[in-house]
Amino acid sequence: MQRIINDPDNVVDDAVRGYLRASPNLYAATDHPRVLKYAIETPAKVGVVTGGGSGHEPAFLGYVGDGLCDAVAIGEIFSSPTADAFLEAFRAADRGQGVACLYGNYAGDNMNVKMARQMAEMEGIQVKTVIARDDVASAPADQREKRRGVAGEIMMWKVGGAAAARYDDLDEVIRLAQKAVDACSSIGVGLSSCTIPANGKPNFTIEPGHMELGIGHHGEPGIEVVPLPNAEAMAQAMCDPILADQDFTGSDVAVLISGLGATPVMELNLLYSHVADRLETEGITVHRADIGNYFTSLEMMGATLTVMKLDEELKPLVDAPAQSLALTR
Amino acid sequence: MQRIINDPDNVVDDAVRGYLRASPNLYAATDHPRVLKYAIETPAKVGVVTGGGSGHEPAFLGYVGDGLCDAVAIGEIFSSPTADAFLEAFRAADRGQGVACLYGNYAGDNMNVKMARQMAEMEGIQVKTVIARDDVASAPADQREKRRGVAGEIMMWKVGGAAAARYDDLDEVIRLAQKAVDACSSIGVGLSSCTIPANGKPNFTIEPGHMELGIGHHGEPGIEVVPLPNAEAMAQAMCDPILADQDFTGSDVAVLISGLGATPVMELNLLYSHVADRLETEGITVHRADIGNYFTSLEMMGATLTVMKLDEELKPLVDAPAQSLALTR
Repeated sequence: MQRIINDPDNVVDDAVRGYLRASPNLYAATDHPRVLKYAIETPAKVGVVTGGGSGHEPAFLGYVGDGLCDAVAIGEIFSSPTADAFLEAFRAADRGQGVACLYGNYAGDNMNVKMARQMAEMEGIQVKTVIARDDVASAPADQREKRRGVAGEIMMWKVGGAAAARYDDLDEVIRLAQKAVDACSSIGVGLSSCTIPANGKPNFTIEPGHMELGIGHHGEPGIEVVPLPNAEAMAQAMCDPILADQDFTGSDVAVLISGLGATPVMELNLLYSHVADRLETEGITVHRADIGNYFTSLEMMGATLTVMKLDEELKPLVDAPAQSLALTR
Repeated sequence: MQRIINDPDNVVDDAVRGYLRASPNLYAATDHPRVLKYAIETPAKVGVVTGGGSGHEPAFLGYVGDGLCDAVAIGEIFSSPTADAFLEAFRAADRGQGVACLYGNYAGDNMNVKMARQMAEMEGIQVKTVIARDDVASAPADQREKRRGVAGEIMMWKVGGAAAARYDDLDEVIRLAQKAVDACSSIGVGLSSCTIPANGKPNFTIEPGHMELGIGHHGEPGIEVVPLPNAEAMAQAMCDPILADQDFTGSDVAVLISGLGATPVMELNLLYSHVADRLETEGITVHRADIGNYFTSLEMMGATLTVMKLDEELKPLVDAPAQSLALTR
């Protein structure tokens, strides 16, 4: 395990300390060691909170900033933050206008957000939630409630954060964040595994010369394991289930390709050119493409593709200014 | 070899096509397939050009943009761009005020820039150069002319680009870019190797449980191979030769830690906290820290540390606005 760490059991606390030291203009500590808030005091707007396991950097904490999230709850690697952490993030983000908690559909996060929300409401903090379910590989379209959240969460934070920044009220922020992530269909391909520091061994196995289509962000099983295709065929294999999930024809879309960690960014751009060709062939217009390491899984190789259907309501929110470690516009 | 590519011999051309499709607001094609220029026509200012081998993304092309470079020459993976490519980049960047070519000290780049510069001058384009030599591990301080350029190049582009953006003349852009990179001392640690697509096999070997201190960006041998230390000891091992290279005591500095590709960003921030502790102990004040994947080597694990001594002339140029794929301020 070739890692830059001290005690494997303290990786997250040590990393949080590093983020605080490196980016004091972005992050401020809170009363909870696993909660960071935006360093700049925000005005009386709806607070936007996210949270999730570590190991997905720059998600989740990289999306704290101007026009995005106001506070983040940080879990152990690939584990949900605690209910206490979500509660403290709600407190840190609340400006008396309520809090939008925008997170992904994982059992631990659901449980802890629910508990934190109950505790917050006893303190007089109103919390509403949007749960991302954009991973088309994790359940069929008619069982969307079972789908996991993957990189479509970024578009949920972007749109919800932009709505809050223009002083939309809580119901409107929630409506738009929900609309944003409902407009997203995502799928991942895994080309290699990763090693959680506290385990010291690869999390799962992908044989060389193969890829797992539909893999989850923690190595959850996908649709099938297939021989590793070339980039052009990989793009088709990723576009097929996405284009079957929603009718994008004639629409403008935002496209996000995120590496899973160790895949070089040049390969993500190479993959994108084939995705762009395919979308063009289908009569779909790319309004904006974000290609890079936006939501990773430690040092996995592979990528996720997210296609988001845009309308005139979503477009200005997707394009609105933002300033953070992960995303700047 | 778990790569997202088509024909391994066409990786660079395929990737360039991807960058052009993904970021039409940043990149425009030129008459040379391996040269990209900034998509927005710049005014009559000094042109800033860089170039180098592929596989270091976001370097070099990620530093084309506002307040940075105007054109980039793109080589094969880990190989210099051709003289023709550098020449076309000079043409693309020239606005009649001359061109500053800011690149790293590698034999192929030196030869091809020299040839391109002679050809450009026959066309009436004045080109002056700064050659980055910031890697303290590659030669002793009294043989600085032998040192390789590594991530200190980013500060050279940042300062040179900012000087050109405020309409400094060519001699002044060159002076400031030279001053910027002379103010940088850098060192890398390699924790694992990488595989060039056209070769299909790892470039070199680092045994698990070991690291190579002072490794170059293409796996060039470092100072020594040592058992992999914890992050705190690794930070000391990187700071020692940097602090011995220049007298930083009492100075303000900019710090840049770049991952080499596959090392998670959380570990880079974790490493930074120990670097920050050490610098504080030495009476050095961190003015700014950039932590992320700024200059990689495909999917190598490891990191580079650059410490740059600032004065009142360099500080505003390091902080000046910039807009690009790799760096935004």
